[in-house]
Amino acid sequence: MAMTGVLRPGHVQIRVMDLDAGVHHYRDVLGLEEMGRDASGRVFLRAWDERDHHSIILRAADRAGMDFFGFKVDSAATLDKLEADLRDWGLKTERIPAGELLETGERVRFEIPSGHLIELYADKTFVGNQLGQVDPKPYSTRFDTGIAPMRFDHALLYGPNVDQVLELFTKVLGFHLAEYVTLPGSDIPGALWLCCSNKAHDIAFVIHPEPGKLHHVSFYMESIDRVFRAGDIMAAHDVKVDIGPTRHGVTRGGTIYAWDPSGNRFETFSGGNSSYPDQPPIRWTWEGLGEGGGLDVVHRKMHETFLTVVT
Amino acid sequence: MAMTGVLRPGHVQIRVMDLDAGVHHYRDVLGLEEMGRDASGRVFLRAWDERDHHSIILRAADRAGMDFFGFKVDSAATLDKLEADLRDWGLKTERIPAGELLETGERVRFEIPSGHLIELYADKTFVGNQLGQVDPKPYSTRFDTGIAPMRFDHALLYGPNVDQVLELFTKVLGFHLAEYVTLPGSDIPGALWLCCSNKAHDIAFVIHPEPGKLHHVSFYMESIDRVFRAGDIMAAHDVKVDIGPTRHGVTRGGTIYAWDPSGNRFETFSGGNSSYPDQPPIRWTWEGLGEGGGLDVVHRKMHETFLTVVT
Amino acid sequence: MAMTGVLRPGHVQIRVMDLDAGVHHYRDVLGLEEMGRDASGRVFLRAWDERDHHSIILRAADRAGMDFFGFKVDSAATLDKLEADLRDWGLKTERIPAGELLETGERVRFEIPSGHLIELYADKTFVGNQLGQVDPKPYSTRFDTGIAPMRFDHALLYGPNVDQVLELFTKVLGFHLAEYVTLPGSDIPGALWLCCSNKAHDIAFVIHPEPGKLHHVSFYMESIDRVFRAGDIMAAHDVKVDIGPTRHGVTRGGTIYAWDPSGNRFETFSGGNSSYPDQPPIRWTWEGLGEGGGLDVVHRKMHETFLTVVT
Amino acid sequence: MAMTGVLRPGHVQIRVMDLDAGVHHYRDVLGLEEMGRDASGRVFLRAWDERDHHSIILRAADRAGMDFFGFKVDSAATLDKLEADLRDWGLKTERIPAGELLETGERVRFEIPSGHLIELYADKTFVGNQLGQVDPKPYSTRFDTGIAPMRFDHALLYGPNVDQVLELFTKVLGFHLAEYVTLPGSDIPGALWLCCSNKAHDIAFVIHPEPGKLHHVSFYMESIDRVFRAGDIMAAHDVKVDIGPTRHGVTRGGTIYAWDPSGNRFETFSGGNSSYPDQPPIRWTWEGLGEGGGLDVVHRKMHETFLTVVT
Repeated sequence: MAMTGVLRPGHVQIRVMDLDAGVHHYRDVLGLEEMGRDASGRVFLRAWDERDHHSIILRAADRAGMDFFGFKVDSAATLDKLEADLRDWGLKTERIPAGELLETGERVRFEIPSGHLIELYADKTFVGNQLGQVDPKPYSTRFDTGIAPMRFDHALLYGPNVDQVLELFTKVLGFHLAEYVTLPGSDIPGALWLCCSNKAHDIAFVIHPEPGKLHHVSFYMESIDRVFRAGDIMAAHDVKVDIGPTRHGVTRGGTIYAWDPSGNRFETFSGGNSSYPDQPPIRWTWEGLGEGGGLDVVHRKMHETFLTVVT
Repeated sequence: MAMTGVLRPGHVQIRVMDLDAGVHHYRDVLGLEEMGRDASGRVFLRAWDERDHHSIILRAADRAGMDFFGFKVDSAATLDKLEADLRDWGLKTERIPAGELLETGERVRFEIPSGHLIELYADKTFVGNQLGQVDPKPYSTRFDTGIAPMRFDHALLYGPNVDQVLELFTKVLGFHLAEYVTLPGSDIPGALWLCCSNKAHDIAFVIHPEPGKLHHVSFYMESIDRVFRAGDIMAAHDVKVDIGPTRHGVTRGGTIYAWDPSGNRFETFSGGNSSYPDQPPIRWTWEGLGEGGGLDVVHRKMHETFLTVVT
Repeated sequence: MAMTGVLRPGHVQIRVMDLDAGVHHYRDVLGLEEMGRDASGRVFLRAWDERDHHSIILRAADRAGMDFFGFKVDSAATLDKLEADLRDWGLKTERIPAGELLETGERVRFEIPSGHLIELYADKTFVGNQLGQVDPKPYSTRFDTGIAPMRFDHALLYGPNVDQVLELFTKVLGFHLAEYVTLPGSDIPGALWLCCSNKAHDIAFVIHPEPGKLHHVSFYMESIDRVFRAGDIMAAHDVKVDIGPTRHGVTRGGTIYAWDPSGNRFETFSGGNSSYPDQPPIRWTWEGLGEGGGLDVVHRKMHETFLTVVT
Repeated sequence: MAMTGVLRPGHVQIRVMDLDAGVHHYRDVLGLEEMGRDASGRVFLRAWDERDHHSIILRAADRAGMDFFGFKVDSAATLDKLEADLRDWGLKTERIPAGELLETGERVRFEIPSGHLIELYADKTFVGNQLGQVDPKPYSTRFDTGIAPMRFDHALLYGPNVDQVLELFTKVLGFHLAEYVTLPGSDIPGALWLCCSNKAHDIAFVIHPEPGKLHHVSFYMESIDRVFRAGDIMAAHDVKVDIGPTRHGVTRGGTIYAWDPSGNRFETFSGGNSSYPDQPPIRWTWEGLGEGGGLDVVHRKMHETFLTVVT
């Protein structure tokens, strides 16, 4: 009861085309802590307010994008239960052995109708944040190292079959729909903001012909003030910015969208709505997403890159 | 799965000794919206980002304090199930008929071992916030009316039998323990911060000989900047302030504690930790709560009023 | 000694093509206080932390733009002295009688080489801000009415002969140059940020073939947080936004550029550099203004409207 | 004209009883940059947005306090003129040779009626801030090193003969009085906030029987958000805090008062009023300073340490 089942976004594996440049970006510019590397050369990082071993995994590859996105669940029993439910719903599932990711237990992997690999897992080593678990300290220099997000917060994924994704996440995985966009002149959902918590969202989807694409990985900032400061730090490191600082109408969060050196979009994000499963979702029309400020409250227009640039 | 069972703090009935003064405080100074009054004269209010009909109920009485605290649950089935579980655990439960509170369904009320009346309910009229449910507007003047919290966030309650309260909330109601304080020189919990979401907490308890006491009702602010501004507005209305602006070490939220005209403490609060049931709770020693900054990071001392002034 | 001579921007008369729409914008959206109207129908307004009678004057006209910009000087003696100095420098000056603007003394008006009418005056009725002059109150609801800038801060003007303007302001009027932009591939100043205080600037100029043009009138906000909030309020009133929220590299202030209903650009601005006359000015190359982030730190590009849209 | 004569607070020499502890505090906790040490062991530091060589000088001594406070003036001619004016007013002046302070020209030193040594000087090596003078960078890690104030802003000094200090600063040195406090039941000024710029103040005095005492040295922060964060960093380093975070009614700045390891009070400060010489000063009664929120808007009381703890 209360918080059960799927708990939160736990990790995402991002493909980078130059590992050193990727590490520089996520570790030195964004300010994540490097937690380790594995035999295959993957780099594991985490943000300062996270308590599990890592959240971001960088893998060198010849094209950018996302390999997989993992949610932590509350127990091994839930993992088994959800695996059975996923199969009942018609998906194939695969068990990835414990240890394939550093400090991470067995994972259940499945491809969803949008073409993305999603994983569930129940175990990742708890390491605590820098403040400690007993009489925690009030401050760590990690709070001011680079852009310094608190946590990996969510991702926005692009692919087909958004209606099936909606059914999967809400009927099988227990998420609720917080906000959605209907396609032009219709009631058909073309974009979804889905939650397994009372955050503004934990994962989001936009309809797109090509499957398995990444729109952005998002990092939560302490305040709007620090989203704004993130823009200065991006500039100092010549990070290419897409949109913002501005506010999204959808989620009502403050945001900057920018690109890592491989062209993967990332977001620094703060504030925004809370959501609960008993509340009817907020509906955005297609015009509302653009001219209505759903994407960009301040400029109230569709930015062309929002719909076209994915990895 | 995900968010189930008990969802969130839904309402709290506060006793005020002068109803007009109380309404002035909560409506005009704090900036809550008055949603209605009932035949008995109770006044129903809510904060600008809440979507149900009301959260704060003021009742004229000859002493200050809290009558009851209600949590919304996800369904009538959950309400039945939790009622049965509460009885199994040994509590008496009472059904309050629908409509006894404006726009609110049937409530299950029970007295917990700390002497507080807690309620569960599954229905309260959804009214939406001022922004609307379709292509919501980006701004309401409600955001800048008075202190203008986003929501009623939690309460801190004082009473005996905190160990039994811990068992009740975690074993029966499905909450997780985010942080706790152990009594001097012991491992016995003397204070609890309990969550049914991934907020820093949804309800908290401190051990106290007298049952059923209210320490404070808390309101969530958009930012630290606005907690600070709340102090200006309190001053303009001659609201008596207890502690802050400062940061709590416990929850890591920015805070001001102050008193309403009847002497009920309220808090304006922002930021702070997220919490999840899989994470071990943070432990504070008694010294950590005081000299360690658990109560007041900046001043790192126990404030005498924290332990002695309740209603 | 210390602060002498020209003290600060005191007023600006803005032409609006629909007076009611203009008043709605500056009074209801921006949140300025209407202080009076004169027989000719001009509307006088001021921001909440200003202490003189008014700073913004709206005049109905058939084209947008700025009629004149006035600086307050410290005394009638300074007014006489500067008038003589201006004549010595070769400008014609005109005395506008006291009372021609509400609550304002005699003004010395002159046209500068960029084609703008600038005025100096020594007297405008001190009315104090809403907080009072003895044991001032800590808060006024004016702080949260509309966008709620603290003050009219500066203007950016476009016109020819920027080199002569530089000489006039620094040699005759006692300003210092805080920052400047050199024209492409040269050392010739093409843009000037000039100060009579230790603010980031009090008036600025950009070289432009057409004389007497207004780029923007700027209003100072309490914080970056409130610049960001201004964007929400603009959106709620469907104010068309040009650039921002972002940071200017020049002045290092947080900014939004937007347009009033007549097409006059205005700015909400916060933070930024201090400046002093003993410090060498900061130089921006033409590329630095664009790709170097002088205009827009976050996006590091020249926005076409910056150079082309003026009134 | 405009900004002339005395420009700004330029340096202050602080006595610390343990030099290493002092350097740790001002360099590592506060985050000032160490610029050099001289043969006598004095340590020279500056804040990140200052452009001259240093502002804070630490001298090891057997008692805490301030040795002297220096203002930069606009030219050698002004230095001569003001020295003559000071002598005419009846003060003895002393010339300290160039180079006695690192990278600093000749200084004119004099003891004012409150028993403090004040200095004027026209030359200190301009070193620029970390951002550079041509196409300056948008960000330096200095912005996030320690508490990271932008600049040494002002000092508050305690001593007798405040009426004579007022005359000296306003009649001889060209300052204007921004705010003042009258002694209980009288019109006699007991505290002064004096400006040579349009800041809230550049130096302040409170009447006190013992001459030459230091109440605090103040550092300007970018925002209220960062004043609040300063409290976290103070806590992490176990810096003892006196008052705040709160807002001063006087100056309307956000503040924390705390103590360095030798017991010298320092302030982290942001926001606040602007001031100009043509505006009548704001008057605070003695009750206004305490119960009226002049010292502490949020708590509206006189803190005993404000009047009693000086070095």
